[in-house]
Amino acid sequence: MQTYKAPLRDMHFVLNELHAEPALSSLPGLAEVTPDLVASVLEEAAKLAEEVLLPCNVAGDLEGCTLENGVVRVPSSFHHAYTTFRDGGWTAIASDPGFGGQGLPESVNKLVEEMICATNLAFSLYPGLTHGAYQAIAAHASEALKQAYLPKLVDGTWSGTMCLTEAHCGTDLGMLRTKAEPRADGSYAITGAKIFISSGEHDLTENIIHLVLARLPDAPAGTKGISMFLVPKFLPTEDGRPGPRNGVLCTALEHKMGIKGSATCQMSFEAATGWLVGQPHQGLAAMFTMMNSERLSVGIQGLGVAETAYQSAVAYARDRIQGRALSGTKSPSQAADPILVHPDVRRMLMTMRAYTEGCRALSGWVARALDIAERSDDRATRAAAEDFTALMTPIVKALFTDLGYDAANLGLQVHGGHGYIRDHGMEQLVRDARISQIYEGTNGIQALDLVGRKLPTGMGRLLRQFFHPVAAFIEARSNHPELGAMVKGLGRAFGALQLATTEIATRGLADPEEAGAAATEYLRLFGLVALGFMWARSAEIALEKLPAANGDAGFYQAKLVTARFYMERVLPQSGALLAAIKSGKAATMALPEALF
Amino acid sequence: MQTYKAPLRDMHFVLNELHAEPALSSLPGLAEVTPDLVASVLEEAAKLAEEVLLPCNVAGDLEGCTLENGVVRVPSSFHHAYTTFRDGGWTAIASDPGFGGQGLPESVNKLVEEMICATNLAFSLYPGLTHGAYQAIAAHASEALKQAYLPKLVDGTWSGTMCLTEAHCGTDLGMLRTKAEPRADGSYAITGAKIFISSGEHDLTENIIHLVLARLPDAPAGTKGISMFLVPKFLPTEDGRPGPRNGVLCTALEHKMGIKGSATCQMSFEAATGWLVGQPHQGLAAMFTMMNSERLSVGIQGLGVAETAYQSAVAYARDRIQGRALSGTKSPSQAADPILVHPDVRRMLMTMRAYTEGCRALSGWVARALDIAERSDDRATRAAAEDFTALMTPIVKALFTDLGYDAANLGLQVHGGHGYIRDHGMEQLVRDARISQIYEGTNGIQALDLVGRKLPTGMGRLLRQFFHPVAAFIEARSNHPELGAMVKGLGRAFGALQLATTEIATRGLADPEEAGAAATEYLRLFGLVALGFMWARSAEIALEKLPAANGDAGFYQAKLVTARFYMERVLPQSGALLAAIKSGKAATMALPEALF
Repeated sequence: MQTYKAPLRDMHFVLNELHAEPALSSLPGLAEVTPDLVASVLEEAAKLAEEVLLPCNVAGDLEGCTLENGVVRVPSSFHHAYTTFRDGGWTAIASDPGFGGQGLPESVNKLVEEMICATNLAFSLYPGLTHGAYQAIAAHASEALKQAYLPKLVDGTWSGTMCLTEAHCGTDLGMLRTKAEPRADGSYAITGAKIFISSGEHDLTENIIHLVLARLPDAPAGTKGISMFLVPKFLPTEDGRPGPRNGVLCTALEHKMGIKGSATCQMSFEAATGWLVGQPHQGLAAMFTMMNSERLSVGIQGLGVAETAYQSAVAYARDRIQGRALSGTKSPSQAADPILVHPDVRRMLMTMRAYTEGCRALSGWVARALDIAERSDDRATRAAAEDFTALMTPIVKALFTDLGYDAANLGLQVHGGHGYIRDHGMEQLVRDARISQIYEGTNGIQALDLVGRKLPTGMGRLLRQFFHPVAAFIEARSNHPELGAMVKGLGRAFGALQLATTEIATRGLADPEEAGAAATEYLRLFGLVALGFMWARSAEIALEKLPAANGDAGFYQAKLVTARFYMERVLPQSGALLAAIKSGKAATMALPEALF
Repeated sequence: MQTYKAPLRDMHFVLNELHAEPALSSLPGLAEVTPDLVASVLEEAAKLAEEVLLPCNVAGDLEGCTLENGVVRVPSSFHHAYTTFRDGGWTAIASDPGFGGQGLPESVNKLVEEMICATNLAFSLYPGLTHGAYQAIAAHASEALKQAYLPKLVDGTWSGTMCLTEAHCGTDLGMLRTKAEPRADGSYAITGAKIFISSGEHDLTENIIHLVLARLPDAPAGTKGISMFLVPKFLPTEDGRPGPRNGVLCTALEHKMGIKGSATCQMSFEAATGWLVGQPHQGLAAMFTMMNSERLSVGIQGLGVAETAYQSAVAYARDRIQGRALSGTKSPSQAADPILVHPDVRRMLMTMRAYTEGCRALSGWVARALDIAERSDDRATRAAAEDFTALMTPIVKALFTDLGYDAANLGLQVHGGHGYIRDHGMEQLVRDARISQIYEGTNGIQALDLVGRKLPTGMGRLLRQFFHPVAAFIEARSNHPELGAMVKGLGRAFGALQLATTEIATRGLADPEEAGAAATEYLRLFGLVALGFMWARSAEIALEKLPAANGDAGFYQAKLVTARFYMERVLPQSGALLAAIKSGKAATMALPEALF
């Protein structure tokens, strides 16, 4: 059975112990965001996730979405969930108070997102895409558009979409064909067909606001000729109610491997009325402000599913009896011992645990940097935080979703044959998690973003935001009596990352294919070192707090054991990744096309 | 689109070049199995797979199986496929001519199995389980039972099942509760409930023969009290037609992640008439003769799906245009280049290729050993071959299915968003492949079999069948001018395997949990070295043949490139696996149960 209790203790650890500096409430505009306030927000979010979203997760998968005469119906149980979600103000938590939002920082928002994704990934896409649209409009649209649309998106009565992909172009948006013809009244007539549009049509909200990439008549070819348009399903009346139907239609639903409760639509725009958002031909840049935030959120999806897979697998491993412990019978009164006694089951559970807590720690770091980048009153501090988030975005997206998928598969595997059938909900987690490695830029694209854009920026300027603190940490603790072994392991892996970085930077300059052939392994290596840093820092805090921890001692003990597991059993992969990177592109690129 | 052409050239390479010694036709009883005969069998099998099985693979997934009033209907398109399959004699190819079989060796049979699994995994289970039942009956049943049942199983008019699992016991069969009460006429009344029974009920054959594990009234507790019974759905009449219905009923179908065309049944036995197969209380041993063969076949399932995933991904990567090559435009007449130009796409394709060809080479080795073990007239040769297959069985099962699942996921990933939707059939491959890591003993159980049983047998006697030829190969070629780098890489990985073996043997003697905690990594390390050995040997042959290869030059060139890719980008994982193994059980076992 899908099992989930929000890991509040660990969330507070990440928020207040691991990333204690700077305290959230010390940032400009966040004076009221005290630990107490945050705790109560997280507790309420936990209730929502556990009591409202999780109970309709399986039902949403079974029922899926339907399309009839252009009308899309979401799973019936999602209606109650969405009403509760909206009425509880959850669509508004990270939005600008000027438009009705609660203005909570990303450090809190990302934890709430994690709970939502953990308990109902398909559902999460409806408010998730809406928030993405909110961000793009808030950043780039005219004041009139903001006033007309943002309050409705923030309070959740309307929802949003991102309409990028066309059948012939996904990654390569330069080929897109949707057209925008200017009209005399300042609006545009949008015509074209889009695919893979999450929440493109559904019956949860009274209006749907599409952000559509299209070409103006005078657009240059390629990505430099793409503009962004706001295209509502219903054209708002003067008083802000949904008015006449616009020329936007869902023509088909995609049949997907998972996230079946999310309506993935083929959309047709036929001279639909739209308004330009941002500057002409600058649509891709505008979309990317939203995409970066979305990419972090997709990473969080991987983390969320991994957490539910972990908790479900632990519950099953405690309950299922099979075989006897290798060290001797543990439950003599039963016909067999719980499978939690078996080393190979523990290996799977510990791996999942090391992934989830490690990723949560890292996302907490990135979220804090997002808040600093947005709010700090010091320009250099803001710039440094921006560099850090730019660097870490592709890593969080790809690493978390790869590990999340692995964790979902481990959760299934712990269940044996019972994991492969529908009844326990584990195979749903695997099917749901799989999309996160693909959308918002495949993980291969994330890796190319890392080596092709983030690495060279400012001659490695972005890298310093990560390399400097890690190097300083290692140097200061190389002779630490208890932490020494972990720091040594981290140092080896970090050394591999530094070597790989030099290797790629040098070879990639001469031949971009060298960087391309190393990209995926490099991103993984970077990600493993980042998690290793988080685990070493977590272990250090646990060591410090353990002597006076009292009732919390178990929490810190578990941190120490899991940190050790990560260092001993996961992080050594860094050596193999370095070897693969060093081997260069030759074997990857040598096979003539005809011989594949 | 699921794309498949049987890789006949590579199959002939494995059969006649890589494993040339001893030639199949030199083995006793195989004089007629000449390369020409084998070639024509494989060509016919390829036609069957490509033209009959692949076309109903997607349809079988969509339609699935239905149960109504105890009657199970398979996907409608499977009927034509099964008739063609049976009429073509494919149910008989590996069976004893004494019962109507064709007596072809496993070296050929496993390649045919690969084609069947590659093109329709769900379908493959119907004849696959039948052949398993055939093997168990042939090895253990009375002459009367053999005469009554084997000809019908061999000609495919009847089919077979293995009824082991019960709701509360899968891995731990010692807990099973199904009862067998002796009757005066020598038969037994079988009563109990089984789950996860592949082909337990269906409408493809006129009778279904269940091999059921159950307890006799005087049975000792645990696995030493399990006996095997033959329980037909219809009790045969004197003249061998299906007679009265037996007390066997399908009570439910499982709803599974994949292999939806395979009927996975909950079965109820109510005083069903059965006959003892083999000795009382020796059922588990009898089942295991069949299980070992099944485990190899499940490994082949992983390989088969991987091949289809690879070919489908290549077809897509040639066809799909997106972006430009990093080295400059390759298809100026098109709006973009085929994605096959991109290094990260090639990384995925080359990985899949290295897996499939490597696994095929290794399974060819094991299959040849099966044939030698069965047919050689030299006792020591037979014993050595038996040791080798016993050692490699868990490795083939777990490694091939893990890599097969990875390959299926890579195939999906190459398709991007188009891989996640139903239309291209890639997500089906992922869902189908997932079961192979679980059934016939989870891959964790395979790893325990390797370290707990196979490693200690005869003080490492089994190991020598692998270690000696690998060591000799490396030693003889350490200064090979062209092969040297590959042999060096293989030598490093083999050194890691030797160290890991000593480590586990030493520690495991003192503490079985040490072996348990290292098992999965050890099996993977062993498997990677085994594939590395296959790749080094393949490369050597390719180097030898290339100068005079003429029209075949491309084939050998591709072998060399793929071998290099494997050595540079996959095999280095051995170092990380050794590090994890050396770290021991502490971090895996330290967390108290309450802290999970």
